[in-house]
Amino acid sequence: MSPPCQHPAVHSVPHHTLTRLAREWLAEDTPNFDPAGVCVGSREVEARLLCKTPHSILAGCPFFTAVFTEVGCTVDWIYQEGAEIGEDAVTLTAVVRGPANSLLLGERPALNCLARASGIATRCSQLQAIAKAHGWHGEVAGTRKTTPGFRLVEKYAMLVGGVSMHRQDLSGMVMLKDNHVWASGSITEAVKAARSVCGFSSKIEVECRSAEEGREAARAGADVIMLDNFQPQVANIIETRTQGDCCFCSMVTLLLFHLQELRVTAQALKEEFSALLIEASGGVTPENVALYLSSHVDIVSLGCITQGCPVVDFSLKVQKPDARLNRVFNQPQID
Amino acid sequence: MSPPCQHPAVHSVPHHTLTRLAREWLAEDTPNFDPAGVCVGSREVEARLLCKTPHSILAGCPFFTAVFTEVGCTVDWIYQEGAEIGEDAVTLTAVVRGPANSLLLGERPALNCLARASGIATRCSQLQAIAKAHGWHGEVAGTRKTTPGFRLVEKYAMLVGGVSMHRQDLSGMVMLKDNHVWASGSITEAVKAARSVCGFSSKIEVECRSAEEGREAARAGADVIMLDNFQPQVANIIETRTQGDCCFCSMVTLLLFHLQELRVTAQALKEEFSALLIEASGGVTPENVALYLSSHVDIVSLGCITQGCPVVDFSLKVQKPDARLNRVFNQPQID
Amino acid sequence: MSPPCQHPAVHSVPHHTLTRLAREWLAEDTPNFDPAGVCVGSREVEARLLCKTPHSILAGCPFFTAVFTEVGCTVDWIYQEGAEIGEDAVTLTAVVRGPANSLLLGERPALNCLARASGIATRCSQLQAIAKAHGWHGEVAGTRKTTPGFRLVEKYAMLVGGVSMHRQDLSGMVMLKDNHVWASGSITEAVKAARSVCGFSSKIEVECRSAEEGREAARAGADVIMLDNFQPQVANIIETRTQGDCCFCSMVTLLLFHLQELRVTAQALKEEFSALLIEASGGVTPENVALYLSSHVDIVSLGCITQGCPVVDFSLKVQKPDARLNRVFNQPQID
Amino acid sequence: MSPPCQHPAVHSVPHHTLTRLAREWLAEDTPNFDPAGVCVGSREVEARLLCKTPHSILAGCPFFTAVFTEVGCTVDWIYQEGAEIGEDAVTLTAVVRGPANSLLLGERPALNCLARASGIATRCSQLQAIAKAHGWHGEVAGTRKTTPGFRLVEKYAMLVGGVSMHRQDLSGMVMLKDNHVWASGSITEAVKAARSVCGFSSKIEVECRSAEEGREAARAGADVIMLDNFQPQVANIIETRTQGDCCFCSMVTLLLFHLQELRVTAQALKEEFSALLIEASGGVTPENVALYLSSHVDIVSLGCITQGCPVVDFSLKVQKPDARLNRVFNQPQID
Amino acid sequence: MSPPCQHPAVHSVPHHTLTRLAREWLAEDTPNFDPAGVCVGSREVEARLLCKTPHSILAGCPFFTAVFTEVGCTVDWIYQEGAEIGEDAVTLTAVVRGPANSLLLGERPALNCLARASGIATRCSQLQAIAKAHGWHGEVAGTRKTTPGFRLVEKYAMLVGGVSMHRQDLSGMVMLKDNHVWASGSITEAVKAARSVCGFSSKIEVECRSAEEGREAARAGADVIMLDNFQPQVANIIETRTQGDCCFCSMVTLLLFHLQELRVTAQALKEEFSALLIEASGGVTPENVALYLSSHVDIVSLGCITQGCPVVDFSLKVQKPDARLNRVFNQPQID
Amino acid sequence: MSPPCQHPAVHSVPHHTLTRLAREWLAEDTPNFDPAGVCVGSREVEARLLCKTPHSILAGCPFFTAVFTEVGCTVDWIYQEGAEIGEDAVTLTAVVRGPANSLLLGERPALNCLARASGIATRCSQLQAIAKAHGWHGEVAGTRKTTPGFRLVEKYAMLVGGVSMHRQDLSGMVMLKDNHVWASGSITEAVKAARSVCGFSSKIEVECRSAEEGREAARAGADVIMLDNFQPQVANIIETRTQGDCCFCSMVTLLLFHLQELRVTAQALKEEFSALLIEASGGVTPENVALYLSSHVDIVSLGCITQGCPVVDFSLKVQKPDARLNRVFNQPQID
Repeated sequence: MSPPCQHPAVHSVPHHTLTRLAREWLAEDTPNFDPAGVCVGSREVEARLLCKTPHSILAGCPFFTAVFTEVGCTVDWIYQEGAEIGEDAVTLTAVVRGPANSLLLGERPALNCLARASGIATRCSQLQAIAKAHGWHGEVAGTRKTTPGFRLVEKYAMLVGGVSMHRQDLSGMVMLKDNHVWASGSITEAVKAARSVCGFSSKIEVECRSAEEGREAARAGADVIMLDNFQPQVANIIETRTQGDCCFCSMVTLLLFHLQELRVTAQALKEEFSALLIEASGGVTPENVALYLSSHVDIVSLGCITQGCPVVDFSLKVQKPDARLNRVFNQPQID
Repeated sequence: MSPPCQHPAVHSVPHHTLTRLAREWLAEDTPNFDPAGVCVGSREVEARLLCKTPHSILAGCPFFTAVFTEVGCTVDWIYQEGAEIGEDAVTLTAVVRGPANSLLLGERPALNCLARASGIATRCSQLQAIAKAHGWHGEVAGTRKTTPGFRLVEKYAMLVGGVSMHRQDLSGMVMLKDNHVWASGSITEAVKAARSVCGFSSKIEVECRSAEEGREAARAGADVIMLDNFQPQVANIIETRTQGDCCFCSMVTLLLFHLQELRVTAQALKEEFSALLIEASGGVTPENVALYLSSHVDIVSLGCITQGCPVVDFSLKVQKPDARLNRVFNQPQID
Repeated sequence: MSPPCQHPAVHSVPHHTLTRLAREWLAEDTPNFDPAGVCVGSREVEARLLCKTPHSILAGCPFFTAVFTEVGCTVDWIYQEGAEIGEDAVTLTAVVRGPANSLLLGERPALNCLARASGIATRCSQLQAIAKAHGWHGEVAGTRKTTPGFRLVEKYAMLVGGVSMHRQDLSGMVMLKDNHVWASGSITEAVKAARSVCGFSSKIEVECRSAEEGREAARAGADVIMLDNFQPQVANIIETRTQGDCCFCSMVTLLLFHLQELRVTAQALKEEFSALLIEASGGVTPENVALYLSSHVDIVSLGCITQGCPVVDFSLKVQKPDARLNRVFNQPQID
Repeated sequence: MSPPCQHPAVHSVPHHTLTRLAREWLAEDTPNFDPAGVCVGSREVEARLLCKTPHSILAGCPFFTAVFTEVGCTVDWIYQEGAEIGEDAVTLTAVVRGPANSLLLGERPALNCLARASGIATRCSQLQAIAKAHGWHGEVAGTRKTTPGFRLVEKYAMLVGGVSMHRQDLSGMVMLKDNHVWASGSITEAVKAARSVCGFSSKIEVECRSAEEGREAARAGADVIMLDNFQPQVANIIETRTQGDCCFCSMVTLLLFHLQELRVTAQALKEEFSALLIEASGGVTPENVALYLSSHVDIVSLGCITQGCPVVDFSLKVQKPDARLNRVFNQPQID
Repeated sequence: MSPPCQHPAVHSVPHHTLTRLAREWLAEDTPNFDPAGVCVGSREVEARLLCKTPHSILAGCPFFTAVFTEVGCTVDWIYQEGAEIGEDAVTLTAVVRGPANSLLLGERPALNCLARASGIATRCSQLQAIAKAHGWHGEVAGTRKTTPGFRLVEKYAMLVGGVSMHRQDLSGMVMLKDNHVWASGSITEAVKAARSVCGFSSKIEVECRSAEEGREAARAGADVIMLDNFQPQVANIIETRTQGDCCFCSMVTLLLFHLQELRVTAQALKEEFSALLIEASGGVTPENVALYLSSHVDIVSLGCITQGCPVVDFSLKVQKPDARLNRVFNQPQID
Repeated sequence: MSPPCQHPAVHSVPHHTLTRLAREWLAEDTPNFDPAGVCVGSREVEARLLCKTPHSILAGCPFFTAVFTEVGCTVDWIYQEGAEIGEDAVTLTAVVRGPANSLLLGERPALNCLARASGIATRCSQLQAIAKAHGWHGEVAGTRKTTPGFRLVEKYAMLVGGVSMHRQDLSGMVMLKDNHVWASGSITEAVKAARSVCGFSSKIEVECRSAEEGREAARAGADVIMLDNFQPQVANIIETRTQGDCCFCSMVTLLLFHLQELRVTAQALKEEFSALLIEASGGVTPENVALYLSSHVDIVSLGCITQGCPVVDFSLKVQKPDARLNRVFNQPQID
């Protein structure tokens, strides 16, 4: 059964952005002539969008629609943005109508976008479910580890999937890492310099390696502290790896040690600075995310939301003219 | 040990394309101000590119270099494009030098590209190894199921990974599917119409469902026949799924049945049309690809090369000024 | 009498390409203000597109329409794309309607495109007629010798004129010339290197100077052999021109000699490699093209299709308001 | 013998325009991969630019150089912009050096531009020679009948060839034709309206059909009067063509009649308004241009400068490594 | 009371320019997501455009409308382009209707444009009133001292405000300053060189420092002479300022002296060259402009039209749903 | 005396942004040919950048340099970004060197940018001085009331001038006004909806009309409260203006009343929510800003920073060749 209304996230993408992306994607897929378009001509046809990955979250509808609008086709959605596709092997998701050559021009870019956005939303939804199952109060979040040129769609899919998009780019929230700190002289100097640029309207996050660093950052005016404890261990491994040790055993030991350290540090900071937000990041996966959901941690961010994320399998089947007489299948209630 | 020379694929991407992409990606990641740049200033620094996924194939170096060139940094590669990263947990792959703020501007777009390109090349290399192990003569190939706006990099990564890029877009090789056939009236008419547009300089591929269709296509002048036998089964499942059967059992049975059918059909066509190429596609994965490597099949294409493909984990560590005194690590022979 | 339907080539140009070009051309012709637009205002007017070159082939209608659509005018075509304009000195070809200032904005870019596209299509049609008169089976083809920035329209006009567009650009069919051969070491190596990049989906053409080179190319996997016999002669002339000989006499002698050589070579290659295509190129003109139409040659390509090609003379006459009462002329049957 | 210095027109094209065009043209010719680039690699090579059309005027060098600069090659010109190529069948014009794959990327766009620009400059030079031979004081001029997207190069070639570029676009000098006049109510009203927009800084030209109209325009403030006497005759032919008369006989008679009328009208206007400029246009060709060179006409404009203009034949020959040892040919003094 | 018709200048901006600017401005103001759009959703709302600067000239309506059209809203204008807003503190100027999130996307870019364009038109109108009050025959004009990227709107606002736009850019009318003169060798040489490039269709203006220079320029073919007498004084001050004199006293004395010199020089030139136009420029302000309105000066140009010009205060108030019941206010007659 | 170092803000603008803007501005000012460039040629010249507005803050140097870099010139700064220009009538600020035609191409766009950026920085610096003189702890801030297409430069100039840039665009900090509130149902609902989109990484500001609204917003999670008390008064005036009252007397009375109300409300909110920021906005000018600097207000924002802001007067004087011999003036110590 399809949900009654679409996800509010659809109002967050301006129309001019949808149009621009649709044009770029169409130009990428047909930079020159469309020889096959001559074979099919411009007679009106109808195609069914089928979802073949059960239990997926549908995401990317505004982009899918924008691509088809750009080529003069219309889309009628049977499932709405953010809906969960059911358990059937194949689910009719939408119907696209328009001139045959136009419809085939839009097919691949539209499917490529929808498959990726829905894949990300589905993974986000699963992460959110884990957080909920653990009764966690915080925000699961994505990162900037996105596909170059496709970030807006990937961030949007996080929104539909129910996780925080985190900052969009370097021009948004300021993130100060160790490079910024030693270049500025101290955490205090770095936060002060950042505040002089971004003013009151942006938040400042500081990557810290200890409660002491976190305290300095909070006092200097940081809004968020990132405890990226997994990082020092990389350096440790580098330093020790020529001694023939088994790296992976060390890694597991270190991970557990640092998770404990993270919880203690987070708790100490939150007790002292109640308005401070704590983010845990680095090496978090769907498998180990539950270990990070401490009550003193406000944000857990994962690169795997946009890296190596499985896609949802969609296909678009143009209906043969005679097949269109039998419309029984084309009813939402079947699904 | 790094290989002596880079992959020839690096000469296939024109300089103007590298520059254009680098600019777009930088603008996406810093559309406006770079507040953190004020903290670090423009003093010259050095950063180490570390690969943390052993046994990966390095791909995307020209794009990585282009991003850093655009912001005024230089890259010295220790491993070359196409090289296999060794078994160490962390491998020094390149050294980037330049003004601190510039280096941090390029970091994320460059890493995002390299991680994805290397991930695809690694999967391609694994597929190619399976084909080689089976003594197969044909070409493993990608598809157009790429990330919108990022296709060129993904196709390029296939090249580095040793698999065929397949057609780039709708303006390249013509692919005629059932829509084109029934719209044109017959396979013969569709091929004739396509040839009238693309002339002698492009190939024409026709999706066929039987040896009979394949023969008609070959006689009409098709260069490649795609036997996408998995597709009819989807329709079968759709027709039967309301009867409560277990879909997945049917799928396995049908898959084996259709694979046998594919081999028989391919053999029949190759015996009659020696110059004809046969492509198998649809539902092929790294797990089942070996089943498709028949001696009568010339091409096996997989969407999973660019869908849900794992990334290779890279990070860029800016060296603290004092750390730069100890350059021992920065030697390729250590790796 | 206008033909009943338009040329199928009109379906080969995607809508987004038409729109993009129309906008670029309008911006080129009115980069800033349109002072004359203030004089005419935005009242609705009607203009007649007149063709003043009898026996022309009409080509470029989709681009002409796209320009006027972009400025808010409509075009009713009396003749269709690909139609032959009759023998009258002046032929009413279409009627354009819209606001006066908009119509005058679109006039010059639309006419400039139509005049050139129709000129090329007309020349192509004449070349095709010569080929047909000689009972030749092959394809007359264009080249990449097009106007920078205007190639798509010029290639499209070939399509309407009935000749092969040949490859669109360097990213299409691979063409290996002597530079590629000596840089690779041998024809075999060059073809192998090219195939490793373009895979099965693109054709490879090799420029050869002898049957022996052609055989090597064909065995290495080349799809097309270009016999560009006219080229060596240029080198001959260069080497001998300081000796005071008459260059032009030598040229005619050499041309006839090389044409004979071309036919013999083509025949030898076709007998050995039945699937191989043979292209003849270099110095072919409408005047001498018949000499090249050998039964063993599959393609003859001419740069003059897009270089120095005469235009078809079109003009657009806005009707004065009172003149619009007399609509007798505005009827297709008059033509 | 090459001239000592280049044409001053080279300073009229801003660097940012050259760069922009070079990038667009390169992207058009290699939108995607350059498979042949893999064959040749990036070793440094040298190529000779040969001109094979004797007595041509060289034009377009800044664009040719810009294309090669963009791909990392250098150009040494032996002949300079605006020089006349001699009578040899083949003339060494420039030497291009750079990486082999880069050089082949730039080859076709650079040659396509140079061939067209030089063709236009050569025709302009011939027209200018006719004017000079008749002792005419005025300006031969081009029109806006240019190739869409390529106008700047075509106008520039006029400049090198010694003829006036006329207005660049609708945003330049205002041209009022009959449409503007009847829409405004009268010539006086139209000129007044145009002046209110363009102010003192632009000229206004008015198309007139009689001395009386010319006088009205001059009094209203027009700077230039276009006497396009050939146009009314078209209407005459249209009105009479159904009566079976021979159109072409009428055309010749009418042409001579109208030329006489043009001279009389021009003289009358010049005597009354000494500062007024008179332009003759419409149907002027290299063959009949001499008929228009009246002492009372200041400008004669021809569409054929940019329509159907022959190109100059250039080719670029990459030197084989061994051939580079013999540098004798590569000396300007040989030419 | 609103005027019956809009200013003719609205026909001078091509539709494709309006669309392009609207898209750029929207992308600048919402480069990424529109989070607030999620709060308001897409229900249809109505907003009132209020002008809060009495006695302003309304300018920029086509741009304002273009922004809202781009986001799917409509604008009903109560006052028309070029109208004078009355003396009320707040005047209802237009009503905008559309989806709430779209309307808020367009609000800021549309207001920013309208406020600036109306500010410039208002200042221009005041300058024009001064000229009229002095019975001056010439043209008040703007300059190229415009905001980078926004020139077209600022020039357009001059048009609506009734002053001359002067040249648009360096590609328009040629202006020769002292740099051009000494680089060319003499005024005569500079004008000759300029004419060789721009031909008959552009005007040439020469900056002169004396009647003698003006005569040389006029004889060489200059169309306009700029007497920028204020400039030499700057050099004088530079040379003398280390001597401790009061700069500002000298400035006033010199200004009056040079104004007298300007009038004498202008008169002398006009008597000798009746068709010559004289422009006065440099340091002109609304306060001192009357001093420059000599009967021998044809153009007085002011940089302050586009530098530091006050804006007109507009705001857009979205009506609450219940407030829309009371439509009494929404009537033009109230204003 | 010039300061020893430049303002840190120069590191906040990425190089790719500077280049993009420089190209757009140059293309705006020379869209086509540069006829005057032919007069001056490409000989190397030197020009002096003179500032003629004493006591200005220099801002925009990176943009000025970027324009000249793009045309192949170099800039040596004598004063650095953020420096205060002294009290001399004319101050040598920088020296530009390069080819004469290139230097004149860059002149106008570079000056237009510098004049505006310095004007804004100067006004900001004056506002900051007022705040400092009153011992105020908060941030003076700009708004989004910027010139379309030029916002980045105007925001940057605020940074150099020492005031807060406020949010860059709608994609930055979320601002909820009354429209968002009533569309969402309540302040609580609006803040909740906004937070669901922007997550933890953006701040949320809510426009409130009373302490009660402020409390609701703060409890819902708002980070900043805008008290825009001047706004209600506008509605009051609208409602009462038909009664013939003097609007301006009412305005002053209301202003004072509302300022008092603002202080009381701010104090109440700050006492209850210590982390909450309070912004005052609406009708603030340099003249009345001191009235707003309450100790309970953290931010005061002014539209006049970017609306009607005076420019700083700069000019660029190319040195005549002979004048270059006398380099005494070209020494920073003179200034």
